[in-house]
Amino acid sequence: MGKALAVSPLAPAGFPLLPDIAGVEIATAAAGVKYRDRTDVMLARLAPGTAMAGVFTRSATRSAPVLDCQAKIGGAPDAGAAILVNSGNSNAFTGGRGVESVQAIAAAVADAAGVPVGRVFTSSTGVIGEPLPHDRIIARLDEMAARLAPARLEDAARAIMTTDTFPKGAGAKITVDGRPVRIAGIAKGSGMIAPDMATMLVYIFTDAAIEQGRLQAMLSDLTDRTFNCITVDSDTSTSDTLLLAATGASGVSVDDTPEFETALHKVMLDLAHQVVRDGEGATKFVEVTVTGAQSDEDARVHALSIANSPLVKTAIAGEDPNWGRVVMAIGKSGAAADRDRLSIRFGNILVAENGWVSPAYREEDGAVYMKQPELTIGVDIGLGNGKATVWTCDLTHGYISINADYRS
Amino acid sequence: MGKALAVSPLAPAGFPLLPDIAGVEIATAAAGVKYRDRTDVMLARLAPGTAMAGVFTRSATRSAPVLDCQAKIGGAPDAGAAILVNSGNSNAFTGGRGVESVQAIAAAVADAAGVPVGRVFTSSTGVIGEPLPHDRIIARLDEMAARLAPARLEDAARAIMTTDTFPKGAGAKITVDGRPVRIAGIAKGSGMIAPDMATMLVYIFTDAAIEQGRLQAMLSDLTDRTFNCITVDSDTSTSDTLLLAATGASGVSVDDTPEFETALHKVMLDLAHQVVRDGEGATKFVEVTVTGAQSDEDARVHALSIANSPLVKTAIAGEDPNWGRVVMAIGKSGAAADRDRLSIRFGNILVAENGWVSPAYREEDGAVYMKQPELTIGVDIGLGNGKATVWTCDLTHGYISINADYRS
Repeated sequence: MGKALAVSPLAPAGFPLLPDIAGVEIATAAAGVKYRDRTDVMLARLAPGTAMAGVFTRSATRSAPVLDCQAKIGGAPDAGAAILVNSGNSNAFTGGRGVESVQAIAAAVADAAGVPVGRVFTSSTGVIGEPLPHDRIIARLDEMAARLAPARLEDAARAIMTTDTFPKGAGAKITVDGRPVRIAGIAKGSGMIAPDMATMLVYIFTDAAIEQGRLQAMLSDLTDRTFNCITVDSDTSTSDTLLLAATGASGVSVDDTPEFETALHKVMLDLAHQVVRDGEGATKFVEVTVTGAQSDEDARVHALSIANSPLVKTAIAGEDPNWGRVVMAIGKSGAAADRDRLSIRFGNILVAENGWVSPAYREEDGAVYMKQPELTIGVDIGLGNGKATVWTCDLTHGYISINADYRS
Repeated sequence: MGKALAVSPLAPAGFPLLPDIAGVEIATAAAGVKYRDRTDVMLARLAPGTAMAGVFTRSATRSAPVLDCQAKIGGAPDAGAAILVNSGNSNAFTGGRGVESVQAIAAAVADAAGVPVGRVFTSSTGVIGEPLPHDRIIARLDEMAARLAPARLEDAARAIMTTDTFPKGAGAKITVDGRPVRIAGIAKGSGMIAPDMATMLVYIFTDAAIEQGRLQAMLSDLTDRTFNCITVDSDTSTSDTLLLAATGASGVSVDDTPEFETALHKVMLDLAHQVVRDGEGATKFVEVTVTGAQSDEDARVHALSIANSPLVKTAIAGEDPNWGRVVMAIGKSGAAADRDRLSIRFGNILVAENGWVSPAYREEDGAVYMKQPELTIGVDIGLGNGKATVWTCDLTHGYISINADYRS
């Protein structure tokens, strides 16, 4: 890591005030896994009755902690659960020794937190391929367990950061039949971000009561509309993990409460956008919306082709309204398009239509628009009703600097 | 464009000495399409009897010149042919006016060069979406036709450059039944390079006599092993064009001469490698070979996933032997892989095997290796016999500088 990175210009003003979630206790510590002078481990203990849902990277080379979480998710909620996350080392591609590290940590967490080992979920994030010095983590667990307390989410968000330049949190509070239900989540991730999923770790907590299968279905569906719609660099992590813990401590069932899904969606979208806003080297936050495609899937393919194109992303970095590169990205995507039916908008400015630049478009208007830090690119394919929205950032010298030196 | 770019550190020592191709005459001119103080148009006239073959971008938004070439390729060789190429403006996404430009240029070239309009092939390369000032080109044609002469290939290679930092040429001479057959080609391209195809224009000439259908089949097959195996930034041009003209002037038939195909392959691979060596901002030339995949296609998917990964490419730029990012790129590719059967080599150094770093690997060895300008990354998937090789370059600050300012 070396020197600290400047905070992204797209960062929110500060960490939000998040509601306490009954049934969730958290502690963090500086275990020295890799970083010095900062926290790098978080421990969360979840009350008995907590339903756990999860979504994980689909990488064929996923890490040992991910495989362990996947094996455990969906278990009975009776006994409570724990989550242990370290930054600085991803314990990915570490062979049999990586599996041993996961088992050792899980066993020690189970001991320290008083939960069954089958309900201990671990995540690791950081460099790939180096052995995880798990003894350093285990050495801190008893002391961390003694300090477990509610409402440490900002601390937790800081402990799991790697190249992130700001901690990421989002929350919501709704009222169901006059009784409050709370949601609060944290995320980390700034590079190696692409759908299915990103180098992201996300932990969301709620005091809602909800059946485990229902919770899992909701989480999977909402992930497709949030975290799987963001991309920084098209690279996909071997460690992506999203865990959602519903403690039920509010006593309010949300099995059939659409407002809960709406609020959860909002929290997840907020966290997903924050990940993009912290995209390595990002100076622009870009929403790409494609309409009029032959199908929603075609729209998504087009939108991601635009959002991942290095030439589109460098043009945005240069504040150049280079819509020709948007045309190029549509052309190469593989999804159906007809050059002469496309229309392209930058914000509300109609730039191109009928196979050419719009007669009303003035390059100066485009150039002024591109100077804004938050941009929208809208494309109508003109072939059908398929639509999709994805979010990305620009590709700058900052990305090169961060990633050409990451391990040095 | 603005200021001239420094010549790529990976450039060959100089433009090669190329054989004259009987039946090919060339002239270039400075028409002022966009650039000042340099040539930007090339005209080639091909003798009656010339067989023409072509391969083109598969972009759904391909340019008017590409569509026109595709409609004409395969025509009868009796009357000769002409090729007209301009740089500075791609005449892509220019609507009906773009089609008119192609028709106007083709008609004027037919007049000036004395060939049928159905045998005039045009290409345009440069910025997308701006009207091509074709009158500036047409105004120079009579004078160019008067100057047509053999052996101007280096001039031609210079006239078609855009962000290229050096002109690209390659040639070969073989002897068939004691009689010489010659091949000479030129190429341009440095950004927006990805298979199917790249922002590449390639023109290859030979005095071999060969049947048109045979020539086309050979060209398509060799393109899959050369130009479709290189990538700079995963972006695909709307203008890619590869034309192969066989004048037959040697009087030597190569319909059944494997040596000709071998020589043509060598010329095409040389040109393809030169395009990568001129990749925008490139400081490293990288060969990625994947073996042991379940199929050749799976190997190709893995190889391209590695070659296109921004995180792999920035690690190479940083001379960081970050094999973890290679693992990541394999994991995300979508092709079959088993984490614990992978092995990874940097050059001859075995870096990782059996799901983890190789016991014999020392990070210092990897770091020394990565300092070389020419690198090979070898991956064995350990699942089958599929194999593929692709070529790419690193992703540097230079790429960002070139592409954030391209239109300014």
